[in-house]
Amino acid sequence: MSNFEISVLFFLQLAFILIVCRVVGWLAKRLGQPQVVAEMIAGVLMGPSLFGWFLPNAQAWIFPADSQGLIYAVGQVGLVLYMFLVGLEFDTNLIRNRLRSAAWVSLSGILVPLALGCILGYFLVRSSGFFSADVVVWEAMFFVGASMSITAFPMLARIIYERGLSGTSLGTLALAAGSIDDGAAWCVLALVLASFSGDPMIAVFAIGGGTLYAVGTLTIGQKLLKPLGILAEREKGVSPTLLTITLIFVMLGAWFTDRIGIYAVFGAFIMGAAMPRGRFAHEVQRQIEPLTTTLLLPIFFVYSGLNTSISLVDSFWLWGIVLVVLLAASVGKGVACWAAARFSGEDNRTALAIGTLMNARGLMELIILNIGLQRGIITPLLFTVMVIMAIITTLLASPIFERVYRRPADLENALAAKSLSSAL
Amino acid sequence: MSNFEISVLFFLQLAFILIVCRVVGWLAKRLGQPQVVAEMIAGVLMGPSLFGWFLPNAQAWIFPADSQGLIYAVGQVGLVLYMFLVGLEFDTNLIRNRLRSAAWVSLSGILVPLALGCILGYFLVRSSGFFSADVVVWEAMFFVGASMSITAFPMLARIIYERGLSGTSLGTLALAAGSIDDGAAWCVLALVLASFSGDPMIAVFAIGGGTLYAVGTLTIGQKLLKPLGILAEREKGVSPTLLTITLIFVMLGAWFTDRIGIYAVFGAFIMGAAMPRGRFAHEVQRQIEPLTTTLLLPIFFVYSGLNTSISLVDSFWLWGIVLVVLLAASVGKGVACWAAARFSGEDNRTALAIGTLMNARGLMELIILNIGLQRGIITPLLFTVMVIMAIITTLLASPIFERVYRRPADLENALAAKSLSSAL
Repeated sequence: MSNFEISVLFFLQLAFILIVCRVVGWLAKRLGQPQVVAEMIAGVLMGPSLFGWFLPNAQAWIFPADSQGLIYAVGQVGLVLYMFLVGLEFDTNLIRNRLRSAAWVSLSGILVPLALGCILGYFLVRSSGFFSADVVVWEAMFFVGASMSITAFPMLARIIYERGLSGTSLGTLALAAGSIDDGAAWCVLALVLASFSGDPMIAVFAIGGGTLYAVGTLTIGQKLLKPLGILAEREKGVSPTLLTITLIFVMLGAWFTDRIGIYAVFGAFIMGAAMPRGRFAHEVQRQIEPLTTTLLLPIFFVYSGLNTSISLVDSFWLWGIVLVVLLAASVGKGVACWAAARFSGEDNRTALAIGTLMNARGLMELIILNIGLQRGIITPLLFTVMVIMAIITTLLASPIFERVYRRPADLENALAAKSLSSAL
Repeated sequence: MSNFEISVLFFLQLAFILIVCRVVGWLAKRLGQPQVVAEMIAGVLMGPSLFGWFLPNAQAWIFPADSQGLIYAVGQVGLVLYMFLVGLEFDTNLIRNRLRSAAWVSLSGILVPLALGCILGYFLVRSSGFFSADVVVWEAMFFVGASMSITAFPMLARIIYERGLSGTSLGTLALAAGSIDDGAAWCVLALVLASFSGDPMIAVFAIGGGTLYAVGTLTIGQKLLKPLGILAEREKGVSPTLLTITLIFVMLGAWFTDRIGIYAVFGAFIMGAAMPRGRFAHEVQRQIEPLTTTLLLPIFFVYSGLNTSISLVDSFWLWGIVLVVLLAASVGKGVACWAAARFSGEDNRTALAIGTLMNARGLMELIILNIGLQRGIITPLLFTVMVIMAIITTLLASPIFERVYRRPADLENALAAKSLSSAL
């Protein structure tokens, strides 16, 4: 297809994606699921698992292989802008007050699922069909370990965001622990990839560069970015020039972290966290948010769905494996985080909510799995098994969260968040 | 390059594009040129004409051929959203009051340049090097005629927009005449393409479908869209769902008009014009505008620049041709529109301003030229000659406009526009 043809089709794809996401979102709302879960499922429905299964020709016509690069890249831009917004709302003061809890939750949120994942990986690599032949045992173990430790960071952020919990201690604790765990999981993945490709520099770049970027941006970067906040106060708003400068930093951060191998979402999130607060943050959010969440982000959810094919899991034995993976994932992440939060002094309600949110794998999981699949570490079968685990843990998050974290307190927190954001 | 590699590079490209556009924009501002002209020139500078000429390796590294499809498609989305915003501000009441002027200006704005272009095309097709060998004389004539009749519609809209003239009679008259002329020019182009490809259905689809779309959207469509405005009033704002529904209509309109061959910008513009006014239009604009104008639209300006190579015009004779083309274009469009506006009773100041704005060719010209080049009608040489004409007529627009349409009255109009938009 020519550039022009792909571009013409892209308008139809956008219309189609927006329609499906809203229809599924409307149904999801009635079942108590947030829009974000709806968009994740809508993505799978638009792929070979449903639309492509019933109407393969129509699916191939609307989403030809030639257009997947475009969908991927635009979805990534949407995701990066979204994670920047999440970082912009991230309150580092709250994390300082909760340092003890955050440390415990994130530590158990990485160690327990990593350990369980390694055990599971050990058994999976011994039966055939899950890993490619050139994978060494420890690589398989740590790959499953890393993908068990993942939290649906963008999804967790969106659930917290949609409920107006961004400024609350629950929201901050979950975001902090989630981001630390995901960061650690990506480092483990980098080690596996480095070993698998035989290039130790991959791990050095990812872990060293990532640490350098995070520390540099949050210290020197934060100081260098201060003038943006002062300008916004002086100009009583964020001018197009100021917004452009901000976007330049976001794009550079995203590029750098992608380049060194720890994924653009972290670069964007950390850049957002380093930005000045007050009028600047408030205005930038107001200007970036609408088009990002309604138009660009749903495209990201579609890409992974296009690469998921549930029909690969076609026997009782395989569904048994799915069940074991699901149990190991939920015990490793959800139960461990709940226990850690309780242990460090949080009340049971908050601890349950944190365990539930941390257990959702969402699309972060899909990203790791896609890398594993593309690099030839895992087979399409293990890919699909893990995708089903990701969808179920994510689907469970909202109803359980809703149960343990009910309306009255919810409202209270939302009000506290409101007064916080209006005080900016 | 893999999808992942292109996506990583895209972040760097975005940062680079935003930086260059802002630096050139800062320089342009000091020379009295608007940001939009700066972005058009920035696009050419980033292409083979400057960046690629001095640093071919660096240029090929930042803008590899593999990534051009992505740049094109995202730029198109930016352009479509932008034209939708322009349509959203388009005041059909003002055009009714100025129907006589609009009719005369648009009529002479299409007939005179078409005639001059046909004469020029007749002589150009007789010397070799400008058209491909299989072009029939009348096709060459009407291709040059159509590209002479083009107005920089998105650019004209942006200049009017940047100066706060969207609601004024000058702004409305220029937008109306510009859109009618561009529409007519695209119909002529459709005839040429139909003849060249030997398929009369191309012209039937473009002209018939375009008329049907415009009339249908502005009558039945407008009625069907009314509930959106009522919902916005009731909900005291535009919710994400409402914004998504709006975007679905925009994307479908863009897809349809692209599909039938009259280009997505018209579909988006007409959809914008058909949308409810008042709080709905105001809120939708507020939500879509920032990211569209700062991030997405500049990408559109880059694509054409990447395909322009000024070094092809390498002799005195060719620069002579450029001069003749430039003169014919300016007399055919600028002088004719000024005369028509005077004739229909506008004061000299308004008439001069209209002639100047209508004479700017901008990127609309580049789009027609790109189609001609891709289809094999014109050679890279004629392409570049016409691009230079487009850039010069566009560069001239602002200083002359500034001269004839000075501050005091400008301010007056801006204030009138302000009170209009705050009345919404």
